Amino acid sequence: MSTSPRADGVDPASAPFHELVGFAAYTELAGFGLLAALSVDAADLATRQALADGAERALARQRALVALVAPKGGPTSGTAAQVMAPFDGVLAEFDTRTRTADWAEGLLTGVVGHGVAQDFCRALATGVPGSQGKDLRAVLDRLAHPSATPGEAEPILVLGRAAAADDVLASRLALWGRRVVGEALNLVTGQLDSRPMLAGLAADAARAAGADVGNGGRSWLVTRLTGEHTRRMDRLRLAA
Amino acid sequence: MSTSPRADGVDPASAPFHELVGFAAYTELAGFGLLAALSVDAADLATRQALADGAERALARQRALVALVAPKGGPTSGTAAQVMAPFDGVLAEFDTRTRTADWAEGLLTGVVGHGVAQDFCRALATGVPGSQGKDLRAVLDRLAHPSATPGEAEPILVLGRAAAADDVLASRLALWGRRVVGEALNLVTGQLDSRPMLAGLAADAARAAGADVGNGGRSWLVTRLTGEHTRRMDRLRLAA
Repeated sequence: MSTSPRADGVDPASAPFHELVGFAAYTELAGFGLLAALSVDAADLATRQALADGAERALARQRALVALVAPKGGPTSGTAAQVMAPFDGVLAEFDTRTRTADWAEGLLTGVVGHGVAQDFCRALATGVPGSQGKDLRAVLDRLAHPSATPGEAEPILVLGRAAAADDVLASRLALWGRRVVGEALNLVTGQLDSRPMLAGLAADAARAAGADVGNGGRSWLVTRLTGEHTRRMDRLRLAA
Repeated sequence: MSTSPRADGVDPASAPFHELVGFAAYTELAGFGLLAALSVDAADLATRQALADGAERALARQRALVALVAPKGGPTSGTAAQVMAPFDGVLAEFDTRTRTADWAEGLLTGVVGHGVAQDFCRALATGVPGSQGKDLRAVLDRLAHPSATPGEAEPILVLGRAAAADDVLASRLALWGRRVVGEALNLVTGQLDSRPMLAGLAADAARAAGADVGNGGRSWLVTRLTGEHTRRMDRLRLAA
């Protein structure tokens, strides 16, 4: 592989890593916005605080991701906008197709959509070689809440309580979850179709897992993401 | 003053301090929600990031405030909802009367409304005696951004840039700022009318400042808050 510098100064060998960090950072910023907005409309102060805390944690994860590609010791704010720029607007179609006026459905959209995106990033990170891969996987795993997977803790508690108290809501949320996971899988596989570097990471990740890479690792990836989604719905006690 | 415990376990001598912390924490949570919501609708990624960072800082201030009244070493999440509960909904009328579909006006509402509320808390904190007052004043002053007063940095930069580039917008924002500061002063003086413990702190603060306390320190307080507002509009280069 050539190592001549690109216009943005990123070493070509590191470009797939940079692109994955950009997508991961962008989805964390989106998760922040979604949880924060739901926080404002929460039914009571305890829920409002819980979702605000969850939003804050998403932003902390975003900062840790951006720090992976920021100049050592420098500020990360300029790097954040720069690394996320290629992904600006990629959630527009997902957002449109999962729009809902129902607060609990909106929260489930966040949990499922954000969850699939995080699982996608974790899966592709296993295809990043060397210390960059090791550092990225550490960041993606590190900020996990003691009682749940990263970013999920408060929404899962809030949604689980609401669904447990209301069978009709639980059925409606189960249905909504199936719709959202379909859209989320479309979103992330669409990224593979349009971004060869991410597709390369997916193939490398499938190879590292000893899976079939005949279709670029897509089958392996979708199977893995679907399995994680089933476990997520189980934690919510909702039918996947 | 009697020192028999109240139903919530708060020592009566500390009750005014607790009430002020509750109001301050509630306004920081509200500031978080407002900045986060504006972040989602920002015109570009850099602005979106800046307002998300500002929202995060508001929540950090809220946590530091709640920690002042939380049991030592214990979790603060239950304390947060408890200490803010008396203030749940106090911003409803302010929010209704300052509603706007214009993004820049919405941001100015946040800067001015949040700024007046913070200045009010800092003023009343000078009436809190002993180590509680000292700790509270330290928290209210501590988390200041290097380049501006607490919580203001990103919104001030964003608004200042927008107004400098557009004279029509600057005139409109100057007008909007006068409306918002009127509503914000109504809000905080309304708190003094309905909460005798906060009114007591205002009188003690005016007394400590050597000011007239004939009207419970209200004149001193409004003069101080108006002066801070003028300086804030100057930083924005908007006519107060």
